Amino acid sequence: MRFVTYSYNKREYLGILKEAGVVELNSVLSQIGKTRVNSMNEFIGIYYDEIKVIEEDMKHKKFDIIPLDKIKILAPIRNPRRNILCLGKNYVEHANEVKATAISKDGIPKAPIYFTKAVNECIGNDDEIRFSTEVTKKVDYEVELAVIIGKNGTNIKPEYAEEYIFGYTIINDVSARDLQSTHNQWFKGKSLDTFCPMGPSIVHKNEIPFPVELDINCKVNGEVRQSSNTKKLIFDIPYIISDLSKGFTLKTGDIISTGTPSGVGMGFKPEKLLKNGDVVECNIEKIGKLTNKVCTL
Amino acid sequence: MRFVTYSYNKREYLGILKEAGVVELNSVLSQIGKTRVNSMNEFIGIYYDEIKVIEEDMKHKKFDIIPLDKIKILAPIRNPRRNILCLGKNYVEHANEVKATAISKDGIPKAPIYFTKAVNECIGNDDEIRFSTEVTKKVDYEVELAVIIGKNGTNIKPEYAEEYIFGYTIINDVSARDLQSTHNQWFKGKSLDTFCPMGPSIVHKNEIPFPVELDINCKVNGEVRQSSNTKKLIFDIPYIISDLSKGFTLKTGDIISTGTPSGVGMGFKPEKLLKNGDVVECNIEKIGKLTNKVCTL
Repeated sequence: MRFVTYSYNKREYLGILKEAGVVELNSVLSQIGKTRVNSMNEFIGIYYDEIKVIEEDMKHKKFDIIPLDKIKILAPIRNPRRNILCLGKNYVEHANEVKATAISKDGIPKAPIYFTKAVNECIGNDDEIRFSTEVTKKVDYEVELAVIIGKNGTNIKPEYAEEYIFGYTIINDVSARDLQSTHNQWFKGKSLDTFCPMGPSIVHKNEIPFPVELDINCKVNGEVRQSSNTKKLIFDIPYIISDLSKGFTLKTGDIISTGTPSGVGMGFKPEKLLKNGDVVECNIEKIGKLTNKVCTL
Repeated sequence: MRFVTYSYNKREYLGILKEAGVVELNSVLSQIGKTRVNSMNEFIGIYYDEIKVIEEDMKHKKFDIIPLDKIKILAPIRNPRRNILCLGKNYVEHANEVKATAISKDGIPKAPIYFTKAVNECIGNDDEIRFSTEVTKKVDYEVELAVIIGKNGTNIKPEYAEEYIFGYTIINDVSARDLQSTHNQWFKGKSLDTFCPMGPSIVHKNEIPFPVELDINCKVNGEVRQSSNTKKLIFDIPYIISDLSKGFTLKTGDIISTGTPSGVGMGFKPEKLLKNGDVVECNIEKIGKLTNKVCTL
């Protein structure tokens, strides 16, 4: 199943995405005799282990489908419980194209590089990436596969990693390159308001074969800039979940953005950074397409 | 006023700290005809502008005081809404003692270094800092003045910074030095479970003259290791709030930990890192004392 957050008649709802539209999630839960939820995080926390049951129960009932043109899809988790957990330089070709931070002799990380992205509110498909050119003049795109954690876990072994996953989505890890270097640590440059487009849906892990090998690409104004496959991650998903959770409890609803492939704007000579009016389209096979327009203030 | 979170008869409460003990906060709110709250963040959000009114109203009523020996003080905000916003190298002598990360010719940052600390659950006074020596062998203390943000704000001018502050507390920014360097960015080394002792209380800003010039020190097993004054911050509180909020919305309940003075364990030769049984005491004038024992697993 695919889970979305959407607005309809000016109110916000959780939903299950179907080809023809969305089914309101709480009405489904009510009809199959389950407790309603207030947020996607609460849904994940309560129903983590019951997705198959819900899917089965739904087969015996009929539900109203609201057509997609009547709703606005929002980010599936608009207010993450903690900052997004991000990986830097997790594809070889990308590590090679951005040499700015020295990490090893050959430029390839020997251990995962973790940083976080604070979120005011995640923006959704078709929302605008907005920034003032007084704050940053070097804004870049980064398509990434994001993993949504389904249940709390510490010191998770790689072979059990998939158990802790709820599903997957797309994140565009929008980055202010000038702020990343001005402030030494990457945090501020990654965390400006609107710099976390996410969605369009959370695809439950049952829909995606494990290990996760999905084509991933990013287009700007229709031009393919990034194109790779998630099987090329230097540190793969089981490794990340195992390594990150050493002495650190991963929590329900945590979001791990697994890093971006080569082809970011700063990797080109001359650089191809984002400018007013640009349309950025992030695609991941089996997950979907996340499109955002750039608007400078 | 000083606000605390505490447990009493196995239940968790918010309270107002007095010399003789604590007064339960929701009973105060009820008695003065105000809406009860579910969390410290909710209290800050709703009553940010009314602290003086609450204080005045309380003078005309009597409240039960629970003696301190009947309760356990917890971290005032156990589950921050976002990661703790931290500053690195924000005292000159500390920037000098830790040269590991090259940031400028003279080692003094030209712009604030921001990073974050994820929190599983903040620990309180007298709780244990616990870590496995299989995860880290180099754990260090860092006493810091933390600022609690009272209301949302973006692009805040330095002269209005104090308006956005709710109060102050103490954070021990416990740090795994080996993980900070292994993972390149500092995040993981700062974010292990139990690595965020906080408290004992949030002291409302009305109790602390602005600009904030407070003696700050840290003792390990009674030996003074760090000793300075918050007036020595390289980037002071108005600057941090103004700079950090450029294009980045600071939110109610956000916690900014302003950096640590010199005298951290890794600054000594030989290093004086934390070991099993050590007692770390963080003191800030007018705020209080935060004591935690180290327990290795």
